[in-house]
Amino acid sequence: MASEVLLAVVSSRGSVWTKELLKHVPDAQVWPDRVTDLDAVKFMIVMKQPEGLLEKCPNLVAVNGLGHGVDYITKEEGKLKPDVQILRVVDTLMAERMAYWNLWAIINCQRRCEEYLQAQRAHRWSHGEVEDLSSEDNADFRVGILGFGALGGELASVLRKNGYPVSAWARSKRDVEGVAFFAGKEQLPAFLKDLRVLVGLLPLTPETTGLVDKDLLAMLPRGAFFINAGRGQSHKTADLLEALDSDQLAGAVLDVFEEEPLAKDSPLWDHPKVRVFPHVSSWTPIAPGVQQTLENWEAIRQGRAVAPERVVKRHLGY
Amino acid sequence: MASEVLLAVVSSRGSVWTKELLKHVPDAQVWPDRVTDLDAVKFMIVMKQPEGLLEKCPNLVAVNGLGHGVDYITKEEGKLKPDVQILRVVDTLMAERMAYWNLWAIINCQRRCEEYLQAQRAHRWSHGEVEDLSSEDNADFRVGILGFGALGGELASVLRKNGYPVSAWARSKRDVEGVAFFAGKEQLPAFLKDLRVLVGLLPLTPETTGLVDKDLLAMLPRGAFFINAGRGQSHKTADLLEALDSDQLAGAVLDVFEEEPLAKDSPLWDHPKVRVFPHVSSWTPIAPGVQQTLENWEAIRQGRAVAPERVVKRHLGY
Repeated sequence: MASEVLLAVVSSRGSVWTKELLKHVPDAQVWPDRVTDLDAVKFMIVMKQPEGLLEKCPNLVAVNGLGHGVDYITKEEGKLKPDVQILRVVDTLMAERMAYWNLWAIINCQRRCEEYLQAQRAHRWSHGEVEDLSSEDNADFRVGILGFGALGGELASVLRKNGYPVSAWARSKRDVEGVAFFAGKEQLPAFLKDLRVLVGLLPLTPETTGLVDKDLLAMLPRGAFFINAGRGQSHKTADLLEALDSDQLAGAVLDVFEEEPLAKDSPLWDHPKVRVFPHVSSWTPIAPGVQQTLENWEAIRQGRAVAPERVVKRHLGY
Repeated sequence: MASEVLLAVVSSRGSVWTKELLKHVPDAQVWPDRVTDLDAVKFMIVMKQPEGLLEKCPNLVAVNGLGHGVDYITKEEGKLKPDVQILRVVDTLMAERMAYWNLWAIINCQRRCEEYLQAQRAHRWSHGEVEDLSSEDNADFRVGILGFGALGGELASVLRKNGYPVSAWARSKRDVEGVAFFAGKEQLPAFLKDLRVLVGLLPLTPETTGLVDKDLLAMLPRGAFFINAGRGQSHKTADLLEALDSDQLAGAVLDVFEEEPLAKDSPLWDHPKVRVFPHVSSWTPIAPGVQQTLENWEAIRQGRAVAPERVVKRHLGY
């Protein structure tokens, strides 16, 4: 009898996920080489699975993305039966990796590392050139987190213990100790007006697509910075470039892009105020990631609830 | 009567120091324009003062450097009367700035930011190219602090609260909670052998000059990183370049150099594994810095002891 569990991963890490899953579920079906019977599949573990595969499994009970953002699943949500659960991985190491990549990017802005990099390229000793930074200590460098899920929560906690003031914005209001929380579009101006750096950690939904546009960027204080480690479609590249070139933005550190991989001829690559990373701000640890999906499947089989932070609210898309 | 206090600062920040001091000591002598009577000078506040100025003040009681490293004073130690006190500034903000610049540099190594920078320059989307980083989380990335004064102590504290294992090396052993402490030349191999990154925070003395040489670098595990934010003369540039080119070192982030400013034709500027900063990892905050020197002077005038961490041990040179 074919396995109820199917793994479908389209990414450079596919083979390591396969190896790890087969340790625990030796008879697992694995797309595309070890697929024997899609009718048997009840639980699917996926990362950027091929389009249409989900709907080819008529008896699917749950589908578990191997990361935190699962837009590659939610975009096919309309094709899934209403009771199919969409699950994500929430992992402490993944959150730590995300938080410290962002901390690096924040200090990179705060300590003007890109200006020093430009000086290095020109063999220029720029001591004293960079403006007086006396107001740029941690306590003066307010970070705003745009999109506040598990990853935003961990980043806020890391920033607070390192002395940074933190603001956060999300769809709905929450009480988070030591964080100035703003919610809903009407509070975006109040959220943005005091920031030195805005960090995007938004999930991709119709509401967040293109949210970081010209109008939003204009609400930041002049000379603020922008970091995006959420989803690239949440920012409008053309508006970002305009804000950088007009000095409304002092710089940007981007790990995600409207289209990935970033096109060879994108103006972002050579922009002196932009750092480009190839979507590496965080990644799911293999063994704990697989273990977590199998825990979820076990819970579902036993009729228990999956931990709520792992469950995507299908009507919200995250 | 001429003021007993003289300020002599040779740096781009000279005028702001002068302005701040004159707020508190309106009649202060200021080198070179407001010098009226060197015989009257009992307390000197300096940063890279002109050579020979100290010995021109026969009634000097104490000289206070405006930063943490005061080698520009200690190198003239032999010309000072035995009872002249040499003082430094020890400031929490200065230590914070130093700690977070180093944290940036550490994460820059840990998260392979230079490799991604090279990829950016080549317009190359390098996701999946960089080796598997599964063992490079904070808990696995041991940082060794070479030279453990007030600045090293603050860095250790910042690293520990962010989950990094910390080793430290100094001339003499100390007990620091959560830090693996090594002391003396005979413990250098044991200190170095487990490090992912070595951070230089050494003062400049005859013992530390050239300490980071070929032999020391060879004791690090292959592929370790080196950061120097102490004094440039503590490393040998030629040995550093050799270690980088042989892949014994995976990279270096340097804020200090054997000669500063770094020569226009130094191979460090264009080295793909080296980041160059123009001695900006920390700087003394103006108002608290001046206030602290004046507190010291007040204590001395009243016959009280200056806080011990601010007093340089003349026989040790730091």
